[in-house]
Amino acid sequence: MAKKKRTPAQAARKAKMTAKDRKTLASLVGMADGVTKSAKRGRAPHLEVPSRSLSNVKFNQSRKIIEMGAASNRRELFNLSQAKTYMQTMLVGRGCKELIEQGKTTSIRGMYYLLKHTIEGTHEETFDDQADCDPVIEDVEVTLNALREELHVYASNRGSMVGNITLVDNGDEIDCSRMGSGGYAIPSIVEPEIMQFVKCTADFILHVEKDTVWRRFNEDKFWKEHNCILTHGNGQPPRGVRRLLYRMHNELKLPVYCLLDNDPWGYYIYSVMKQGSINLAYESNRMAIPKAKYIGMRSRDFELCELNPSVTIKLSENDIKRANQIAKYPWFAKKKRWQKEIQKMLSNGFKLEVESLISKDISYVTQEYVPERLAKGDFLD
Amino acid sequence: MAKKKRTPAQAARKAKMTAKDRKTLASLVGMADGVTKSAKRGRAPHLEVPSRSLSNVKFNQSRKIIEMGAASNRRELFNLSQAKTYMQTMLVGRGCKELIEQGKTTSIRGMYYLLKHTIEGTHEETFDDQADCDPVIEDVEVTLNALREELHVYASNRGSMVGNITLVDNGDEIDCSRMGSGGYAIPSIVEPEIMQFVKCTADFILHVEKDTVWRRFNEDKFWKEHNCILTHGNGQPPRGVRRLLYRMHNELKLPVYCLLDNDPWGYYIYSVMKQGSINLAYESNRMAIPKAKYIGMRSRDFELCELNPSVTIKLSENDIKRANQIAKYPWFAKKKRWQKEIQKMLSNGFKLEVESLISKDISYVTQEYVPERLAKGDFLD
Repeated sequence: MAKKKRTPAQAARKAKMTAKDRKTLASLVGMADGVTKSAKRGRAPHLEVPSRSLSNVKFNQSRKIIEMGAASNRRELFNLSQAKTYMQTMLVGRGCKELIEQGKTTSIRGMYYLLKHTIEGTHEETFDDQADCDPVIEDVEVTLNALREELHVYASNRGSMVGNITLVDNGDEIDCSRMGSGGYAIPSIVEPEIMQFVKCTADFILHVEKDTVWRRFNEDKFWKEHNCILTHGNGQPPRGVRRLLYRMHNELKLPVYCLLDNDPWGYYIYSVMKQGSINLAYESNRMAIPKAKYIGMRSRDFELCELNPSVTIKLSENDIKRANQIAKYPWFAKKKRWQKEIQKMLSNGFKLEVESLISKDISYVTQEYVPERLAKGDFLD
Repeated sequence: MAKKKRTPAQAARKAKMTAKDRKTLASLVGMADGVTKSAKRGRAPHLEVPSRSLSNVKFNQSRKIIEMGAASNRRELFNLSQAKTYMQTMLVGRGCKELIEQGKTTSIRGMYYLLKHTIEGTHEETFDDQADCDPVIEDVEVTLNALREELHVYASNRGSMVGNITLVDNGDEIDCSRMGSGGYAIPSIVEPEIMQFVKCTADFILHVEKDTVWRRFNEDKFWKEHNCILTHGNGQPPRGVRRLLYRMHNELKLPVYCLLDNDPWGYYIYSVMKQGSINLAYESNRMAIPKAKYIGMRSRDFELCELNPSVTIKLSENDIKRANQIAKYPWFAKKKRWQKEIQKMLSNGFKLEVESLISKDISYVTQEYVPERLAKGDFLD
């Protein structure tokens, strides 16, 4: 294990820790100190873990983001039903501490392997499988109020970026206007310690749902003509993409426009980008972009763009159910235009993918659809 | 449709076509000319479509790649059971022609939308769904002996690259040793017309299966220390990654080492990278790398690396079935060391992911496992 290996080189690395690393490390050590303190006082060690259940999530009307409430659950060592999770929580804390001290990062799968072992003298495993470990990582995040990235655990990295921005990623300067056809692969850790913005002349960000649509825009040099930054998240954007959009929106004052499918999944992606997600409510603060605009696809586009009926896709039972759920989200419920949008999709009885615009012309979406809506300021909010 | 829009600008683009574009276009036009020729001679128009079935695939023992045989199927217009597919084939040909003439590319989904319409005066759709269109695209590829990329249709792009190589992608010079933590997103079209190698000082290529493992190697600057290029394909590498590895291997004379999981899926990925796949047998020629080496994980590593039993994953019924199938592949069947490898996994009764090495140390894989095997030349072939 790593402990045997703490060499002078590692000590040097430790010295190179960022201010944020030191802060996170202090929280982790504080968590451990709690145990010894309790023990010395003859009390049962416990943790207060903020509750991540739906009932502890609320929509903050003034900030327009989903936030966690104040409820928490006590996790005790000397409680038969909680002892294992308690120890797992401490174990994850130890894993994060090692990562920070070594200046390394890993995936949630890596964390699982890092901590998995058979407890000495028993047949008991620390974690039976990864599903056992993942929620504990989230528990540590909320307990310490630290982003996963601050714990040196990264999420998947999907998503690319291209456009008029130059940034430094891990010491390398990257000019996103010279990234060829592939673009810059957005990493999952985009915190200011790792990534700094050097220069940005772009006027806005166009975020599209899919890689394939992104490529049409990149091939047509849309970002050059319209002076923007072009991103995609391969479906629901992962944390790295959301966090990067958040940073560019707030630090560089760039408006964010979202081009997503006209289906419940597209609506949901917009909802998460704008208000945050229920599951990651504790991170809305650093990821949600309440001012993000929805540029399309819209339910009206079938008629407006004179699309052929053959490019429509019939709504499934599940689509209808999801659409009705989404319509009731507090952040959509009071918005007449969104209600109309969702009702229109339901009465259409079909959904429309952004790619369906190809049936008009291969570059209709880049040359007419988006430019017209940008020029008119025609989007949903 | 695009035809209405052929403007002077498009004519100019047409003039900018590459030599390969002209060749592909000539094949497409030739396919259409066949129809008029037949009609003028009073014969029924037909196409000869090379058969993509398993029975028409064979392993070329001297070239060490999977190749297509000579069998083909006749596809006739005046045959009730073939008429629709015949017309779909011509339609895909038309779509590709439009793309090439416009100097644009699209995804298989884009192609589907480009061609989907209700046939005038009927309720018949050109394609009912995408599953209807995809095999026809592959038919056109084999019929014209043109790579999908040459038809201007791209596959998904997953996979990243970092290391001591500088290339030009679509006119932009990209130094892969200065790509930060995210790396260069390998595009799906990497043909010489789009991508040129400018400078490469690397000694070899290390290809790893997963994004997460790739990040460990990148974070540890393995490619700097060992002067190599580091790639991943997010599982089974997509065409773009395979084609790029092929080009770097052949044009830059770089050996390719594969770090994959010790499970039937890892074996299969290696098999496809090395010999080609049955489904894309017609592309082995331009993608298979018969000299690629398998550096691990190996079945012996459980003992050799003294791993904790808790990091093993029990083989499923399906794993056992797949392992036995793979052992019988002609390109594995005669290799004693591969037979031993597969038998050892079966007798172990478990599989091992590369990430399981994290249980030794977070950087064990980059600092000990791979360097030791590279130094000793210890791999499977």
